Amino acid sequence: MTATRTIRPGMPVSELETPVLTIDMDAMERNLASMLGMLAGSGVGLRPHLKTAKSPALAQRMIDAGAVGICCAKLSEAEVMADAGIADILLTSEVAGPGTFDRLVALAQRLPGFKAVVDNHWAVAEIASRARARDIIVNLLIELDVHTHRSGQPTPEGTLALANIIRDTEGVRLIGVHGYAGHAQVRPLEDRQRLNGEAMALLSETVELLREHNHELAIVSGGGTGTAEMDVANGILNEVQAGSFLLMDTLYRDAGLQFENALRCRSTIISRPTPERAVCDAGGKTLSSDGGKAEVESHRGVRYTHGSDEHGSLAVDPTQLDRELNIGDTITLLPSHVCTTVNLHDQFVGVRNGVVEAVWPIATRGHVW
Amino acid sequence: MTATRTIRPGMPVSELETPVLTIDMDAMERNLASMLGMLAGSGVGLRPHLKTAKSPALAQRMIDAGAVGICCAKLSEAEVMADAGIADILLTSEVAGPGTFDRLVALAQRLPGFKAVVDNHWAVAEIASRARARDIIVNLLIELDVHTHRSGQPTPEGTLALANIIRDTEGVRLIGVHGYAGHAQVRPLEDRQRLNGEAMALLSETVELLREHNHELAIVSGGGTGTAEMDVANGILNEVQAGSFLLMDTLYRDAGLQFENALRCRSTIISRPTPERAVCDAGGKTLSSDGGKAEVESHRGVRYTHGSDEHGSLAVDPTQLDRELNIGDTITLLPSHVCTTVNLHDQFVGVRNGVVEAVWPIATRGHVW
Repeated sequence: MTATRTIRPGMPVSELETPVLTIDMDAMERNLASMLGMLAGSGVGLRPHLKTAKSPALAQRMIDAGAVGICCAKLSEAEVMADAGIADILLTSEVAGPGTFDRLVALAQRLPGFKAVVDNHWAVAEIASRARARDIIVNLLIELDVHTHRSGQPTPEGTLALANIIRDTEGVRLIGVHGYAGHAQVRPLEDRQRLNGEAMALLSETVELLREHNHELAIVSGGGTGTAEMDVANGILNEVQAGSFLLMDTLYRDAGLQFENALRCRSTIISRPTPERAVCDAGGKTLSSDGGKAEVESHRGVRYTHGSDEHGSLAVDPTQLDRELNIGDTITLLPSHVCTTVNLHDQFVGVRNGVVEAVWPIATRGHVW
Repeated sequence: MTATRTIRPGMPVSELETPVLTIDMDAMERNLASMLGMLAGSGVGLRPHLKTAKSPALAQRMIDAGAVGICCAKLSEAEVMADAGIADILLTSEVAGPGTFDRLVALAQRLPGFKAVVDNHWAVAEIASRARARDIIVNLLIELDVHTHRSGQPTPEGTLALANIIRDTEGVRLIGVHGYAGHAQVRPLEDRQRLNGEAMALLSETVELLREHNHELAIVSGGGTGTAEMDVANGILNEVQAGSFLLMDTLYRDAGLQFENALRCRSTIISRPTPERAVCDAGGKTLSSDGGKAEVESHRGVRYTHGSDEHGSLAVDPTQLDRELNIGDTITLLPSHVCTTVNLHDQFVGVRNGVVEAVWPIATRGHVW
């Protein structure tokens, strides 16, 4: 019992029902080539975070182009990606809720390339006992808090203690560390360099401490769109978890990243009450606002001022308008935050030269458990 | 290709995978009884706005209890509600995008109780020509901007001019006016009274003007959770479009509304890095932030400080904690804004006495087109 949208490959983009998310295929392909080019020959692999694009098809596309695997934020996301044939998945959030340890170990059993982060000994024990019951070994990375002040072991010493516990526990194996400098990603260049430098210094110190104590760490994973270039230069990570680079948003653009805005929202003007005001059909259930307002790209002199649930309110400066803006006209908008905007939609429409080329389900939208 | 959650009627709520939205059935039933009691005998009907609960099952429940019909914000929402057997639907947003006039008129043809708002003559012409082609008459309400400054005719005179156009146009019929004082809903009592008073005065003036010109207006629709009580007293509306009262959120609670918080999010602590910090599994893809932070209900001394994509960061005051807060513990949270939070999820779990009583698909989640 859902209404379905009329979207067919080959149809002109102008005929798409609105609001709708489109991906500029050329821009997306250039973004991927650009990221892979940045990493080429550095020994740092691309492990894109699929909490952003939430699409197995786009995950596979990145793997086919050279990504070493993917990250997922939630177990249900990883389950869907595994079902879709993605072989190498790192779960970057701890789990602890009802049923999650059973599901995690079940996924590890059917997907040898699955690995998960932990930051506490209780989770290690929960995972290990279930792994022993299934006679398997679950691969783990310890999450270190590299000053993001979210989850993760806060100190190198705490990380070492947890690493020793994992070594002494049957059913689990330590294969790496995970240190995501989330706080450093969406910042001006200078701040990114400083914050990421401090974060990676702590990660490096921790990696050295663990290696001194004979812990083999095949994977040192972290980083993102905002720090990938400096992570290559630092030489501490051997994987970067960038996700937003593929589709981009205005937050990352404004932070100075050179990837192209490939994701757009097409929306229609539904009301034009005064020369200074217009209303479009893309509100807060279409464009997320946690990263600020969306940006009107198609028309000069038009500003997205507020997204109520289902209306987008626009301020119009009639003296600046470079095109007409009438009821029924289409506008294009750039989302402020790609991750939370994509999560509001059920599909992407891939567009090239004004024509629909592909439709991809956003298969892990809403997969928060 | 989606992961499915294990939710069975009869299971203890403590076994639900997290994060998950629950509805306190007793509280929801009391909220509905309370709203209907407030309207009883007043001549003002309840036409709940289903942009909030987004569930045909809950729509039907309200109709069975006495609601006169429902509102939908988007055409795709109305299509799903019609498929589910809801007979009386008012579409409260203008449409104008590719294909929407065809869909609107097709819906009107199969659902005699369908009606839609318009605020401009172009839309009237588009609807009317399609209605004539199908040999039907589409029922319309004119939307008046009652100082919300979003869509709607800005003046009584403009509304009259549009009413005259509708009267002169074959294929459409004017059956009412719609004036939603959205800006007055979520405010302290005094502001609600003042702003709604001004809004309803403008609506009343417009209704009188149209009636003076022999326009029959069977429906005068507007209002919401925040103004329902005063709308009864005003006697201008004959329908109120309240939606949030059923499930509630902290925005409306903080504005002084007496309905109960029936909607909760259950979430699990996944990390506990320091005595002053904890992380739960409900981030910004689980709890919307356009209405502010969610509120931790289950534990004293714990504050939800930030929702990143998939992590909820919590500040803990250990001296205030009234219960332990360990990894694996469940917390309950009250959403700040019910409409945008519900829109992130695929189902509600109805709970009574700690046991799952019902599971309802949030069938129109993501139906923005």
